[in-house]
Amino acid sequence: MKPIGVIHSPFRDRGGAPYQGCRSEKISRIEVFKEFEEGLQDIEGFSHIIVIYWFHKSQGYHLLVKTPWDDVPHGLFTTRSPHRPCPLALTVVELVGRKKNILKVKRLDAIDGSPLVDIKPYIAAVDERSVVKSGWLEGKLGKERS
Amino acid sequence: MKPIGVIHSPFRDRGGAPYQGCRSEKISRIEVFKEFEEGLQDIEGFSHIIVIYWFHKSQGYHLLVKTPWDDVPHGLFTTRSPHRPCPLALTVVELVGRKKNILKVKRLDAIDGSPLVDIKPYIAAVDERSVVKSGWLEGKLGKERS
Repeated sequence: MKPIGVIHSPFRDRGGAPYQGCRSEKISRIEVFKEFEEGLQDIEGFSHIIVIYWFHKSQGYHLLVKTPWDDVPHGLFTTRSPHRPCPLALTVVELVGRKKNILKVKRLDAIDGSPLVDIKPYIAAVDERSVVKSGWLEGKLGKERS
Repeated sequence: MKPIGVIHSPFRDRGGAPYQGCRSEKISRIEVFKEFEEGLQDIEGFSHIIVIYWFHKSQGYHLLVKTPWDDVPHGLFTTRSPHRPCPLALTVVELVGRKKNILKVKRLDAIDGSPLVDIKPYIAAVDERSVVKSGWLEGKLGKERS
């Protein structure tokens, strides 16, 4: 797996990154390597894109994890913890602008220097679901302990 | 990157898989390897999960691609084509049931034998966006050429 770019973000380390990018108004710049620039053609028409990147500072993992949202541990695959067997991150971000191979986006939670693995268009008809149950997280988002 | 499981699906090859899993009612079984089973704890509470898998039959890619939805080619990263520099697939599926390390899911578009890379909870508050523009795809979904 070879990265296709690198993320430049205002978050220098994990402590500074928001728990969910969707709650930060800060702008990040996604640099897609020049050799892949042609693959961005027509991306300006999309308001949102899915960014897949590598949690490159992640080391090891536990299968049961405690999160800022609950006192009880839950299965790793019911959390978005960066510490995973395959430490891939996935965030839906707002595409603010593009200059050649650089995308300006909002609501990305990546730390500076994260390797970019893939970009996919966010398509509401494909990626959204009605009547969603969020298990143990239901009603807890926005109420994390600091 | 080491797979955490394998997908058993009714789709034997790419020709048989639906363009978007979300349009198929067929059931697939996701086998999470035994060593990761504990990480599934509490997953039953989630109606939907995000499945990241490997397009293991993908070979090579083009940066401009023609899709079944348009006569004009578009940038690869504005499509969900399986032929990508990092051939990762991402599908939001419906979790129908679980027996130990096996998840029964609906609306997965993976072909049989696809390596499972990660599972994340689908959280509407995090993963959904209002007012979405889908660029060149707008109004074209569901109208693909056969």
